[in-house]
Amino acid sequence: MDKSFQKIRNDFPILNQRINNEPLVYLDNAATSQKPNQVINELVRYYQNDNANTRRSVHTLGERATEEFEIARKKVQVFLNAKDSREIIFTKGTTDSLNLIASTYGEENIQAGDEIVISYMEHHSNLIPWQQLALRKNAVLKYIGLTKDGQLDMEDARRKITDRTKLVSITHVSNVLGVTNDVKKLAIIAHSHNAVIIADGAQAVANIPVDLQDLNVDFYAFSGHKMMGPMGIGVLYGKYDLLKSMSPNQYGGEMIDSVKKYHSTWADVPFKFEAGTQNVAGVIGLSKAIDYLNDIGMKNISKYENELVKYILPKLLKIEGLTVYGPQDTKNHNAVISFNLNGIHPHDVATALDMDGVAVRAGHHCAQPLMNYLGVTATVRASFYIYNNQFDADQLIKAIYDTKEFFNV
Amino acid sequence: MDKSFQKIRNDFPILNQRINNEPLVYLDNAATSQKPNQVINELVRYYQNDNANTRRSVHTLGERATEEFEIARKKVQVFLNAKDSREIIFTKGTTDSLNLIASTYGEENIQAGDEIVISYMEHHSNLIPWQQLALRKNAVLKYIGLTKDGQLDMEDARRKITDRTKLVSITHVSNVLGVTNDVKKLAIIAHSHNAVIIADGAQAVANIPVDLQDLNVDFYAFSGHKMMGPMGIGVLYGKYDLLKSMSPNQYGGEMIDSVKKYHSTWADVPFKFEAGTQNVAGVIGLSKAIDYLNDIGMKNISKYENELVKYILPKLLKIEGLTVYGPQDTKNHNAVISFNLNGIHPHDVATALDMDGVAVRAGHHCAQPLMNYLGVTATVRASFYIYNNQFDADQLIKAIYDTKEFFNV
Repeated sequence: MDKSFQKIRNDFPILNQRINNEPLVYLDNAATSQKPNQVINELVRYYQNDNANTRRSVHTLGERATEEFEIARKKVQVFLNAKDSREIIFTKGTTDSLNLIASTYGEENIQAGDEIVISYMEHHSNLIPWQQLALRKNAVLKYIGLTKDGQLDMEDARRKITDRTKLVSITHVSNVLGVTNDVKKLAIIAHSHNAVIIADGAQAVANIPVDLQDLNVDFYAFSGHKMMGPMGIGVLYGKYDLLKSMSPNQYGGEMIDSVKKYHSTWADVPFKFEAGTQNVAGVIGLSKAIDYLNDIGMKNISKYENELVKYILPKLLKIEGLTVYGPQDTKNHNAVISFNLNGIHPHDVATALDMDGVAVRAGHHCAQPLMNYLGVTATVRASFYIYNNQFDADQLIKAIYDTKEFFNV
Repeated sequence: MDKSFQKIRNDFPILNQRINNEPLVYLDNAATSQKPNQVINELVRYYQNDNANTRRSVHTLGERATEEFEIARKKVQVFLNAKDSREIIFTKGTTDSLNLIASTYGEENIQAGDEIVISYMEHHSNLIPWQQLALRKNAVLKYIGLTKDGQLDMEDARRKITDRTKLVSITHVSNVLGVTNDVKKLAIIAHSHNAVIIADGAQAVANIPVDLQDLNVDFYAFSGHKMMGPMGIGVLYGKYDLLKSMSPNQYGGEMIDSVKKYHSTWADVPFKFEAGTQNVAGVIGLSKAIDYLNDIGMKNISKYENELVKYILPKLLKIEGLTVYGPQDTKNHNAVISFNLNGIHPHDVATALDMDGVAVRAGHHCAQPLMNYLGVTATVRASFYIYNNQFDADQLIKAIYDTKEFFNV
């Protein structure tokens, strides 16, 4: 893969810089990915040639922008294997998508005493909307526990999801533990109890193939910026009939059918949920990012990242005083690895690694309840993507040894 | 201004194209503005050098992105003459900003029987959120009427705004009639009745100087894309104490103080309202757009556009069978001109103008109640910006005569 790796690497000019006199090793991909020239150039092309508002103007630029926008919607549909492009709603990101479901479907369907089931490994964006909905509705929030090695406890899932459950919302891939959850099985369990199920795909869609017909979840949420797309754009997938039954979350231009002085009616799905001027450049950039990912192939990306995990994880586990959170083997481990070094605060580790040019994140990773569950306040997280390689992994290992030496632990 | 006009014009490569074998004359700026190379290049610079998530990571790229993001916030503050940069919240656009106020401040403060005052010239994004809030709360929605020449009727405003009024929301510049409303006086009236006042600045902030200390409104909403900034980014200004008193509108990463299993506490303003990964590139691009506008000077922009109106409006009014909506003189007329041609449907006019390379919008301009008020279903709208000149105005006039000839009216 060396030759094709170099070809990919060359598409990311940001990586060709030195940080503190060391080559940049960007391992913070679970926070946001870098963008290939193809995506950046697409933004330039759009703004220099076709920029216009969509669905409003019959002039040539307006028609070009609208056509490109709807082609992008279709591309997202095919990428996810959704049934219908109307099931694809553009949002500003995963957080926006999940809040949309909570404030419409949740608000309209959750009653006092109903149960909402999430897990201990949820990102705040897939936790607080449900926590606050439960508080507003006097509903019950339940957490599925984890196994000792940080996997979702499927036995506990079967116990927690019952006929009282109205809604299940689970991350597809954990942004801390790097595990992939069996969302397909969870959907079968949820549906057997007539509950709807949402998957938070923020950490999944960039790294593993996602087939919504296979997973059969009711909603799926993700962001463009973690999958090489521009910032400020995300997607909410929802099954057509569910979306159709829901009220809009925001009111404004182009989401309406008719507006009278004291009442209004709404446009059809998906436009009902896309109030106001859309992030057209963002959507078109996301479409180009999907092209880029498709050119490599999502299976190849997943396989490549797994090879990297196989290379780095044993090296990490060999380091004295280093604890890896999540699976200790490479079987169900995406390229997101959280760890701590005995005796050094995670933020100090991250700062020290940065001195060696290695960019990782330290903190609670927007998952405080998970941190409590793991008995830590924070971890260091190294997250790899397709433009990282064994050199990057070696630099991380070297920088960790440097850090241990510097702190004398 | 010819030399400096050409300099400005050269910054917008999109304008150097032919549409239907005619030079593009882009007069749909009230739908979205074009972007100068400076803004486009800034997006490229950011993505090729500094791209990272903000406020999460201590590594070098993360710190650079966070610093640039907060410098942009400060720049918006100074641009608007807001008191404190914490009063600047980044949203996805005007619609998002206005819905945020309705779903938090509105939801928490409007009671049954309270009155909300808007006007007949509101865009749907500053109308439906209040209409739906009034329906939810059993509150009363009131409309300020217009004078015969399409100005806000200030006498009616004094009648409609009373001690029962809790909230006034008025557009600063109309996106249809091109008038500037006396928001400063409206704020005095609203405050004398202890009502809060919101101004929708979507059509104002790109074209006239905005001084929030002078206007003294409580909230101010606008989008980046109409002021040469990228799509997908907007601003909500709110007075600090009001923002502090409000609940968050969305839940997710970085808007929290602490998250426990069954309850959470929130970060301070402005972060409380910025859940999830921000559109960092959008914010940085908006910052560059403000630099670009400041370099020309908002007073100069306003003056230049007014000169264009003085040039084009009399020529339009001379055309037989053409009706201009809004003021018939140039005194209070921004460079947004709505009109109809007797005997030709506005959409047909827009299509015909496009055949001559002239891009205008036809439709209800997301202002159906205003259309009803004017007794039309739609209008044609030509909206000019700083990169338009008398040549563009002449092309519009010529294309209108061509259209009349073609339709034989």
